[in-house]
Amino acid sequence: MNVTNNHITYQNPVIDPLNKGLGAFQQPLAAVDVKALNWNLLNEDLSLPTAVLYEECMTHNLNWMQQFVAEYGVKLAPHGKTTMAPKLFARQLAGGAWGITLATAHQTRVAYQHGVRRIIMANQLIGKQNMAIISDLVADPAFEFCCLVDSAAGVEQLGAFFQARKQKLNVLLELGPDGGRTGVRNSAQQTEVLNAIERWKDQIVLAGVELYEGVLKEEADIRQFLQHAVACTKQLAEAGRFTERAARQPVILTGAGSAWYDVVADEFSKADIGLPLDVVLRPGCYLTHDVGIYRAAQAQIQTRNPVARKMRTELQPALQLWAYVQSIPEPGKAIVALGKRDAAFDAGMPLPVSHYRPGNAAPTATPAHWQVTGMMDQHAYLQIAAGDDIQVGDMLAFDISHPCLTFDKWRQIAVVNPQHQVVDVIQTFF
Amino acid sequence: MNVTNNHITYQNPVIDPLNKGLGAFQQPLAAVDVKALNWNLLNEDLSLPTAVLYEECMTHNLNWMQQFVAEYGVKLAPHGKTTMAPKLFARQLAGGAWGITLATAHQTRVAYQHGVRRIIMANQLIGKQNMAIISDLVADPAFEFCCLVDSAAGVEQLGAFFQARKQKLNVLLELGPDGGRTGVRNSAQQTEVLNAIERWKDQIVLAGVELYEGVLKEEADIRQFLQHAVACTKQLAEAGRFTERAARQPVILTGAGSAWYDVVADEFSKADIGLPLDVVLRPGCYLTHDVGIYRAAQAQIQTRNPVARKMRTELQPALQLWAYVQSIPEPGKAIVALGKRDAAFDAGMPLPVSHYRPGNAAPTATPAHWQVTGMMDQHAYLQIAAGDDIQVGDMLAFDISHPCLTFDKWRQIAVVNPQHQVVDVIQTFF
Repeated sequence: MNVTNNHITYQNPVIDPLNKGLGAFQQPLAAVDVKALNWNLLNEDLSLPTAVLYEECMTHNLNWMQQFVAEYGVKLAPHGKTTMAPKLFARQLAGGAWGITLATAHQTRVAYQHGVRRIIMANQLIGKQNMAIISDLVADPAFEFCCLVDSAAGVEQLGAFFQARKQKLNVLLELGPDGGRTGVRNSAQQTEVLNAIERWKDQIVLAGVELYEGVLKEEADIRQFLQHAVACTKQLAEAGRFTERAARQPVILTGAGSAWYDVVADEFSKADIGLPLDVVLRPGCYLTHDVGIYRAAQAQIQTRNPVARKMRTELQPALQLWAYVQSIPEPGKAIVALGKRDAAFDAGMPLPVSHYRPGNAAPTATPAHWQVTGMMDQHAYLQIAAGDDIQVGDMLAFDISHPCLTFDKWRQIAVVNPQHQVVDVIQTFF
Repeated sequence: MNVTNNHITYQNPVIDPLNKGLGAFQQPLAAVDVKALNWNLLNEDLSLPTAVLYEECMTHNLNWMQQFVAEYGVKLAPHGKTTMAPKLFARQLAGGAWGITLATAHQTRVAYQHGVRRIIMANQLIGKQNMAIISDLVADPAFEFCCLVDSAAGVEQLGAFFQARKQKLNVLLELGPDGGRTGVRNSAQQTEVLNAIERWKDQIVLAGVELYEGVLKEEADIRQFLQHAVACTKQLAEAGRFTERAARQPVILTGAGSAWYDVVADEFSKADIGLPLDVVLRPGCYLTHDVGIYRAAQAQIQTRNPVARKMRTELQPALQLWAYVQSIPEPGKAIVALGKRDAAFDAGMPLPVSHYRPGNAAPTATPAHWQVTGMMDQHAYLQIAAGDDIQVGDMLAFDISHPCLTFDKWRQIAVVNPQHQVVDVIQTFF
């Protein structure tokens, strides 16, 4: 742990034996040394249940998304709340991402401390300590940051805080659809926010426009909302809102979760507001993908989007959970040592895909009728059929739905190659 | 961090500025120094959202449960998977708990490393690394440990592993009801397990009988199952199963989650197996309680159980989430900066209870019509009424349902007194 510029930098993260899902070791270990341990998942070198990331699939997904945004000439600021793994942020940035998106002041601090220097906080910045955290970070002139505003009250609070600190803060005007989440709903609300920004013109700088289209469910509604955002950005540009003071250039226009980023790319890449424009997409789940809600969403994208179709490859699920069969107490039921404390369950149960008996040559595909019917804190109920070849001590691999809520169950996650050799360990900071 | 006996001891845990929900500080800080920081929740000294534990409520709950088990003359091994907070384990033990219950080898290691020396792992011990973790710990003769067995296959695997290590392992026979989770269902399965224990008699030592009654829903079924367990334990005692080798004495008979511990106490405290018997209850959620599933369960206990009725006090909710109102985009809707990454949502949404405007004298109760209608990763939808006195920047306190899945969202949790002054910070190890 090194201290620079009054901020801690965690350049040499340690692997901690008190974190679950790792192998046998007694003392904290530098993550760079992990390859030397020669851990292999199939050799039972990890303590199950465990979550593993597949190196090759992640690299494929990284490249896929970077190629996709490049085709549209737009920029990528992957949502970091999904993984909260600075090592993965670093790979996204090295792969060409323009910045990282985050949701809270805490998350922003974690990313900054690990070297990220351009962050969209796609959320309102509320509260004294949260503002203090951001104030400390934007004191670094090399750090580019903006957050959202959607109310005059919010702008007033930011203005007063940052005036006292003699600092400027870049903000994006958030637009929201009726019935949606945050964001101004109409021009009256928008004017109130803009007037508040005008009152705090020495502190609060309008840098662009933001939305999250994922609260809408239909493509037509989403396209209409996106077109509204483009028109709004153009009006603000024409009204001199982005040029009258030392606002960041180019103007930022940003949207896109993991389900509709293609439609956002399509609409926003056509925008002409008469000023240089950075269109920024913010999907987060593409890196690990899944076999649930995001596989379904991606299948839609592969169908409707010409650029995705042309690429001829798809995102690959890169995050799996492995666990042991611990009991087969009834002919049609196995109990697996994997629970709600280990896996997301809000968007579908983990899906068994591979079955491995320690000592065997390789895992085999699980029968289609094996499925998780329920989970408790530490147990999963696996429906099997009487007579199936399954034993206590067998290992099962599960694909997942909703990577976000799986990541936050794990403080350290092994990265494996196709031979299931552990090649890296990433840390998460939730 | 000190190293003793080849195991790390975390005697001086640090508070890490990269963990969420804490106050402003730049460098890791010894947890013992936290009082000196003089953080007060109502002074906005913490970065919200945050989880807080109420010191006085926890102490009340600790005493309540200890008094309850004392009235029955039974022992308490609180389930530690709920909090995974060694500081709370230490308080439970100091308050009179006989031991700590855990669910995995990893959890057992965490507790051991923090000084816990008697653990029931109320689960099967499966897999090479998990057995290796336990093997390292039971090498300490001061450490008392037992885990569950419910299959011959499981016993065989344990026997082979611990024979190679020349160690003994105490196990409890797990009984399970038809349609339930783990545990032997009938005497044929039971005999298979006992025969396997006999084959590995130099390694695997039968120390008692275990069940988890919480998979059943009706009191009559639960009482029948408990009576079956008592009869089974008595038969095993009469057959000399607990005395023929150097088994632990007294015999252990253990059950009870957080919803039916009174019924288990009632049935098991009457057991006479002709040998000294330690009846051990394992509730976990009593320490923080909640206002959802466990409030409902506890209300049943207060109604049906004479000892609980006689105590005239009830468990108190001791864990709250605090968050800011970040947006009021429509007249009937506020958006709160609190999401699925911060709170359990599997057993009911967080329930708003207090409303505090920074600068005011004290929080007020929230109107009954304010309720959370949904949560996303970082946002909660709060239903309000047009014209309600609520503003962006207001703080809201939420009681929770299902403490387990709330604890595992937080790595460090502030403990506050009734004045909302932070008096301690506990660490969790999930």
